[in-house]
Amino acid sequence: MKKQIATISKKNSNYSMVQLIAQKRDGFPLSNSEIEWIIENYTSGVIPDYQMSALLMSIYLKGFSKAETFQLTKSMLESGNILPNNDSSIIDKHSTGGIGDKTSFIVAPIAKAVGVKVPMIAGRGLGHSGGTVDKVEAIKGFKTALALSEFQTLLEKNGIVMCGQSSEIAPADKKIYALRDVTSTVSSIPLITASIMSKKLAEGAAGIVLDVKYGNGAFMEKLSDAKKLAESMRSVANLYGNHCYTIITDMNQPLGNMVGNALEIQESIETLKGNGPKDLTELSLILSGAMIHLAKKAKSLKEGIKLAKAALQSGKALAEFKNLIKNQGGDTNVIDDYNQLGVSKLTTTIHSTQKGFIKSFDTKKIGYLCIDLGGGRKKITDVLDLGVGFDIHKKIGDPVKKGDPLVTIYHREAHQNILDDLKNDFLKNIIKFSVKKIAKPKLVVATNLQWSKK
Amino acid sequence: MKKQIATISKKNSNYSMVQLIAQKRDGFPLSNSEIEWIIENYTSGVIPDYQMSALLMSIYLKGFSKAETFQLTKSMLESGNILPNNDSSIIDKHSTGGIGDKTSFIVAPIAKAVGVKVPMIAGRGLGHSGGTVDKVEAIKGFKTALALSEFQTLLEKNGIVMCGQSSEIAPADKKIYALRDVTSTVSSIPLITASIMSKKLAEGAAGIVLDVKYGNGAFMEKLSDAKKLAESMRSVANLYGNHCYTIITDMNQPLGNMVGNALEIQESIETLKGNGPKDLTELSLILSGAMIHLAKKAKSLKEGIKLAKAALQSGKALAEFKNLIKNQGGDTNVIDDYNQLGVSKLTTTIHSTQKGFIKSFDTKKIGYLCIDLGGGRKKITDVLDLGVGFDIHKKIGDPVKKGDPLVTIYHREAHQNILDDLKNDFLKNIIKFSVKKIAKPKLVVATNLQWSKK
Repeated sequence: MKKQIATISKKNSNYSMVQLIAQKRDGFPLSNSEIEWIIENYTSGVIPDYQMSALLMSIYLKGFSKAETFQLTKSMLESGNILPNNDSSIIDKHSTGGIGDKTSFIVAPIAKAVGVKVPMIAGRGLGHSGGTVDKVEAIKGFKTALALSEFQTLLEKNGIVMCGQSSEIAPADKKIYALRDVTSTVSSIPLITASIMSKKLAEGAAGIVLDVKYGNGAFMEKLSDAKKLAESMRSVANLYGNHCYTIITDMNQPLGNMVGNALEIQESIETLKGNGPKDLTELSLILSGAMIHLAKKAKSLKEGIKLAKAALQSGKALAEFKNLIKNQGGDTNVIDDYNQLGVSKLTTTIHSTQKGFIKSFDTKKIGYLCIDLGGGRKKITDVLDLGVGFDIHKKIGDPVKKGDPLVTIYHREAHQNILDDLKNDFLKNIIKFSVKKIAKPKLVVATNLQWSKK
Repeated sequence: MKKQIATISKKNSNYSMVQLIAQKRDGFPLSNSEIEWIIENYTSGVIPDYQMSALLMSIYLKGFSKAETFQLTKSMLESGNILPNNDSSIIDKHSTGGIGDKTSFIVAPIAKAVGVKVPMIAGRGLGHSGGTVDKVEAIKGFKTALALSEFQTLLEKNGIVMCGQSSEIAPADKKIYALRDVTSTVSSIPLITASIMSKKLAEGAAGIVLDVKYGNGAFMEKLSDAKKLAESMRSVANLYGNHCYTIITDMNQPLGNMVGNALEIQESIETLKGNGPKDLTELSLILSGAMIHLAKKAKSLKEGIKLAKAALQSGKALAEFKNLIKNQGGDTNVIDDYNQLGVSKLTTTIHSTQKGFIKSFDTKKIGYLCIDLGGGRKKITDVLDLGVGFDIHKKIGDPVKKGDPLVTIYHREAHQNILDDLKNDFLKNIIKFSVKKIAKPKLVVATNLQWSKK
């Protein structure tokens, strides 16, 4: 019955995982070589999951210092291949995840149009939040599974790539992430920092723009936590010689109007055509402006945004998105014909039963309802229905009359029996009204730039 | 890579282990049915080790209320067979473990001699601490592996049994204990309470005497923690209709003089013959006196101790130990001939290099050194050398002259190369001296009796 204890390592044979767990449990720091030993031996399978999860919970509850977080990131990064970051025009963007967050599809082509090289290695849906890779697969033929060598070739040739996580990059993160996901150790600032940065630092980018979401649709609900996370990631990026912009943005309501994989691609293309929702367009311009600035194609964020705007308005960004689709085997007809995206033709619209102003959303719930429709995974083997989702017609601060359309549900025949529940959920639990006028929330609450000394 | 999540149960299909971990992680209580669901599904293998260890660490760091601790004990108890506790003369004793703690071999026969029935299901060595079952196996032929039905038959027939843990009793504890041992979640008051009491409440005893150790040779180093643990166990026993004495005793030095399996049996027999060390004799009389009182064979602890003393002095207790050995297939010649215990003939004595008074011991360290000699396990498959150990000649407060023998090591030929290290360890790290006179520490610091209302 007794479990095996991990005490043997190639490099350091003197550590005992039991003692290292106790050390962190009691609030004492782990040394660099202890962290290195743990990551090496967990990745290679010497340390079993049950010891790692006890350590992860200790880290969650007792914290990790800046030095420990840096070493954790370093060890996880070094568990896989690392591309050299000697091209200052390669800049990535990463979002900590939210509902309706589709800026990647807009930001990457805009930045590319201004001469930035964009190495976007993205994720799939996670928890309540959708994933870039799932979404882009709504485009017929778009290939997201690339070997690291293919990724490098494409980046060199085309200056822009959008693909899924390679097993060659940070395999330690892949294993640790899967464990965190099922042991309630996800929303820890040092663990999120190491997870994101170990992957991002391997991509060969000279700089990164981090869109750190806060609010009831984000992993960090509190603004103060989002600020801490931003600071933690910026600090690690900087120690690693990466330029870093952190942009903290509001995620107390969906970004844009569309929620759901194919619907979000459609809205992204509309935005690239200049017809996007105001919030989505604004944020996309700021994020791409920051990328342009980090790539030193602009002297300031302001100038970067100006260049981004020009690339959007001139249609260059849309042309770059078309190129990206073509480069990765996708059907470029999607730009002019959304039919091929497979958005469900079956819709049901929820109308307001009262008048007033939209006060708030239970944003995370919208994400979970999209999963219920089949647009996200409950378990890893689930096959997604990319054509379902929601069109959110009203946003916080919008005036609403009785009978106004609030939400259009894109669903399937099989969902008829849950439509009443969905309606009820939106009207009673998700959307809250105010009789008094409500101010529109500020979308971007902070931007912080840190140039690496390198 | 993604782990499977336990969400299915026979009784309650609505719980998610991920959510329950998060609940405790965030400091919220678990309900009775949630705890029941967890224990059922962990025992049956539905909940994987890595989720359980994350929960155990959350319990360790965030605590369990009295109600949660009671439910945890109940669920673990109900995972196996439970013997009826309708015979008020069946009383058990349990110690939370320490160095040189051999009272079971003295206490059980004394209590039996005064008419108490003693159902002693004991453990093997654990961490730095030795185990009753390992020790008693130094007696040739003594059978410790009994099925629950054999245990019952022997108890009924002889009124005294001493055996190892049956897999029929509290299997949940067996599985959880093995996990705690390797995930640094042992020294948690609610988890210790549930582990001890789930086993003890199943034995069919009407009452229990708990010897709760504190100090640098105990699992609870602080007196305040030992008091909390005592209170927690007494409270659970009482809620379950069990009478309970908790006796908090000092474990800042070995109990008695002998440390090591066979050596401890030898010292126990000497004590039953009336030649035992003062501290060991005193504690054994108090513990057996408490058992006699709980069995209502005496009106008070004081009267119980008096009866215990008489049983010891008359030789009745020694005779009962001889009977116990005979009942369980052991060679009773051991009583008069210690040679068969197999204590090593090879000894090395450490002499004092200074004069003064013994101030303190690093008691836990003595336990670990005994393991190094082969007297305890580093991993579950280790075969013990029962004949090694230490004879500690001086105790705290004893005056010491330069050249006085301090410790005799019972070792093997193979240990020659570590003898110098052992000597150094004892003289420099383990035994500390004072030039001024030191008071002998109080052995028993608190006794608390709680009669069940049942």
